[in-house]
Amino acid sequence: MEVFKELYLDKNSPQPLYMQLADQIKRLIEENKIQRGFKLPPVRRLAELLDVNNTTVANAYRFLESHGYVRTKIGSGTYVADLAKKDDDIMDQIKLLDRGQLVMAPGTINFASATPSPELFPVEDFKTIINEVLDRDGGIAFSYQESKGFRPLRESISEFLLLYGIKAKPEDIQVISGGQQGIDILSKAMLNYGDYVFVESPTYNGAIAAFKSRGANIVGIPLRKNGIDLEILEANLKNKRPAFIYVMPGFQNPTGYCYSDENKLRLLDIANKYDIYILEDDYLNDLAYSGEDIKPIKSYDDNGRVIYLKSFSKIFMPGLRLAFLALPEKINSEVIAAKHITDISTVGLTQRAFDLFLRKGLWKKNLEYIKKIYSNQMSYVCKKLESIKGIQFEKPSGGLYIWIGLPEGYSSVKLYAMCLKRGVLIAPGNIFYPNYEEDNHFRLSFAALSYQEIDRGIDILSDAIGELMENRTEEKIMPLI
Amino acid sequence: MEVFKELYLDKNSPQPLYMQLADQIKRLIEENKIQRGFKLPPVRRLAELLDVNNTTVANAYRFLESHGYVRTKIGSGTYVADLAKKDDDIMDQIKLLDRGQLVMAPGTINFASATPSPELFPVEDFKTIINEVLDRDGGIAFSYQESKGFRPLRESISEFLLLYGIKAKPEDIQVISGGQQGIDILSKAMLNYGDYVFVESPTYNGAIAAFKSRGANIVGIPLRKNGIDLEILEANLKNKRPAFIYVMPGFQNPTGYCYSDENKLRLLDIANKYDIYILEDDYLNDLAYSGEDIKPIKSYDDNGRVIYLKSFSKIFMPGLRLAFLALPEKINSEVIAAKHITDISTVGLTQRAFDLFLRKGLWKKNLEYIKKIYSNQMSYVCKKLESIKGIQFEKPSGGLYIWIGLPEGYSSVKLYAMCLKRGVLIAPGNIFYPNYEEDNHFRLSFAALSYQEIDRGIDILSDAIGELMENRTEEKIMPLI
Repeated sequence: MEVFKELYLDKNSPQPLYMQLADQIKRLIEENKIQRGFKLPPVRRLAELLDVNNTTVANAYRFLESHGYVRTKIGSGTYVADLAKKDDDIMDQIKLLDRGQLVMAPGTINFASATPSPELFPVEDFKTIINEVLDRDGGIAFSYQESKGFRPLRESISEFLLLYGIKAKPEDIQVISGGQQGIDILSKAMLNYGDYVFVESPTYNGAIAAFKSRGANIVGIPLRKNGIDLEILEANLKNKRPAFIYVMPGFQNPTGYCYSDENKLRLLDIANKYDIYILEDDYLNDLAYSGEDIKPIKSYDDNGRVIYLKSFSKIFMPGLRLAFLALPEKINSEVIAAKHITDISTVGLTQRAFDLFLRKGLWKKNLEYIKKIYSNQMSYVCKKLESIKGIQFEKPSGGLYIWIGLPEGYSSVKLYAMCLKRGVLIAPGNIFYPNYEEDNHFRLSFAALSYQEIDRGIDILSDAIGELMENRTEEKIMPLI
Repeated sequence: MEVFKELYLDKNSPQPLYMQLADQIKRLIEENKIQRGFKLPPVRRLAELLDVNNTTVANAYRFLESHGYVRTKIGSGTYVADLAKKDDDIMDQIKLLDRGQLVMAPGTINFASATPSPELFPVEDFKTIINEVLDRDGGIAFSYQESKGFRPLRESISEFLLLYGIKAKPEDIQVISGGQQGIDILSKAMLNYGDYVFVESPTYNGAIAAFKSRGANIVGIPLRKNGIDLEILEANLKNKRPAFIYVMPGFQNPTGYCYSDENKLRLLDIANKYDIYILEDDYLNDLAYSGEDIKPIKSYDDNGRVIYLKSFSKIFMPGLRLAFLALPEKINSEVIAAKHITDISTVGLTQRAFDLFLRKGLWKKNLEYIKKIYSNQMSYVCKKLESIKGIQFEKPSGGLYIWIGLPEGYSSVKLYAMCLKRGVLIAPGNIFYPNYEEDNHFRLSFAALSYQEIDRGIDILSDAIGELMENRTEEKIMPLI
């Protein structure tokens, strides 16, 4: 226990106690003060020693486990993990680099992904609800579900959408297993080999991968601060007719930009004029910190032009894999057929639980809580970033991403490699372009990080940038394509 | 309550009480003795009246709800449903006919699908386990999971596979969201536009649909009672090289046939000789009623030829959408990339729960229970079928399907249409052929039916067949392609 006596938890810190504890145990492991196979003290004993609740220690252990630092042997205890054990997973991830998924070694400060941190999840509420569902529905909850989705859930989603100014009948809702599946299913339903798809440039690389996997030709349309470049869009429409154009009008990934209402309306006009569909990916419109709501393009759509994709992963519980599509009636049957060959239906238990979650108004309650925390984190990160010389960025009015520019001529891929060596992960701009074009921007997210990690991470980032600019470095660049 | 006084439940019947009750209330609705909007008596009152437990009545109401007969308004009660309400869903399903999914109107006796009936699910055990997981893992259970699958689950699956004589490292296991997703993901990972895929003829139509959706050319190899026709297979391999050959060696869908061990070994030799992969779909090997286990081809595979796909939907809880792949190391990274663009990862909560389910040995316990019930149903159905003149079938030694032949020249599509008019759904043979060739066979399943439904259904089937043979009918045939 000796080494644990050094631990100190600050009850006045904005960072949750369990996070502080996890951070400090992490450091003990990284600095080899406790080695692989070392058995951590039982929850109760450490809790007594630190004078905190058992749950604080239990949460810290869970966090460490989910990040690969420790392994729990059921009935035996919690042990410092053999970090080498994670190598196979890391290898898999490295292989995924060229598909836009980034490598992450244990201990890395991850500014690259925007996975919300688990303590933001309404676990207790959800537990109550799951049990309510099991008592109410019994075995039915585990039976095959309609491919279209559990009807009561589609009804409450139809209600829910009115808050966004969207009118959609339950028959036009398709429940899906997360936003990525929505993109995959729409690709199946709408893309034939060789079809064109227009996307914002830069854009979400998971979408690029799904479109490419269907053999689509991808055309990137430059994204400006107020939305997609409509002139270049129309110029392209003169000689190419895409199956659809894929856009994220709210807090776009990776830029965090928002479309102006004018840009949304003009885009809709263009879609009508050239008779193309718009695939609107709303993955976190809800995270508007300024207070003013983001109006989806779908809310302006009277002609069944907009396919609306709403994911809850970034703002709710990603592990639930729950999302939905609000569809133009015309493509309903193609989409349900695609859903059917993709996975028959989405997990019934989570559909039924989420239905209750919406009906009980817990969604709004949870969202307000999350917004407050992320909004503070966003301000904190941007404040820290201001101290870094030579970079340009605008503080986004919402969302989880900051798009940071290096001076012209400097490579964000090189910066990525330099940071990775120092245990900090950023998302270099080029992975967000259809053809991985070099770019002097990189994307920063903070959703999964503690304040301490943010401090450490941005200091390291700052050093790396300084070094990059002084051109003192000859680091090897990791291939990203 | 008057009308409910007529109800009579036979405590000595093999059919569960709640099923008997559901059947009788169904009849009241179908015979219009209680109309749309009619409020069913509260669970407690009906239970008293019939002198049964509340749960019996509650289960009956749930069953009726899941079959579209009643709707529960939370906090208000249970009402006879407006059956027209289901029309939109039915329309969707009709649109799906040409993709191999069959229409089902409420009240239909469904011999076509093999959805296990909910009372076979280990709901109580599972509820305990889910709560155990939530207490143990908290928010982590709802966080993003490894695309490959929750590692402890991959470890227990690796253990579990030893029972089937399969050696697979956790690194070679890919957790997926149901068997259909496995087929979809492998199509993404392995099929390029225009590639060949060999399949058994007949075969599972959900696989045909997924392969076609990738633009694959499908070649059907005739299936014999002891396995795929190896001569015809080799003849085709002389001039075509498929990405893989898709087979179901145990209780094949739709035929219920099993490959002989010799056929399995020779197939494996051929795969090695021509350097092709075998995609082995084990969707219910476990349901061997004779007691002797089915050895998967994968258990003979020393050269990484066999991609093993194991689904739990037919024998466990389909609504969980849980399955896995045991992969040759060579294709690991393609598959995890395909999984990633398909839905990032499978629901974490269900992965963690199923891991505990395996570790606690509840799988075996549940399987034995299910086997007994299905085995009895299989015998019961086959006995009834023997009384029908003119059809040929062999009682399968396991599984959920019976493949029934009409005399040469009679159309199972015509029989399908005749039965559908009479409220009985069978699966006509032609939907199981790559090009929907006409066929004089049809597939019967019983997994979701009560003994009373089986009795009524087979009587109706028998009449229809009699009429078909006497050729007294000029019924319109519903288009199936």
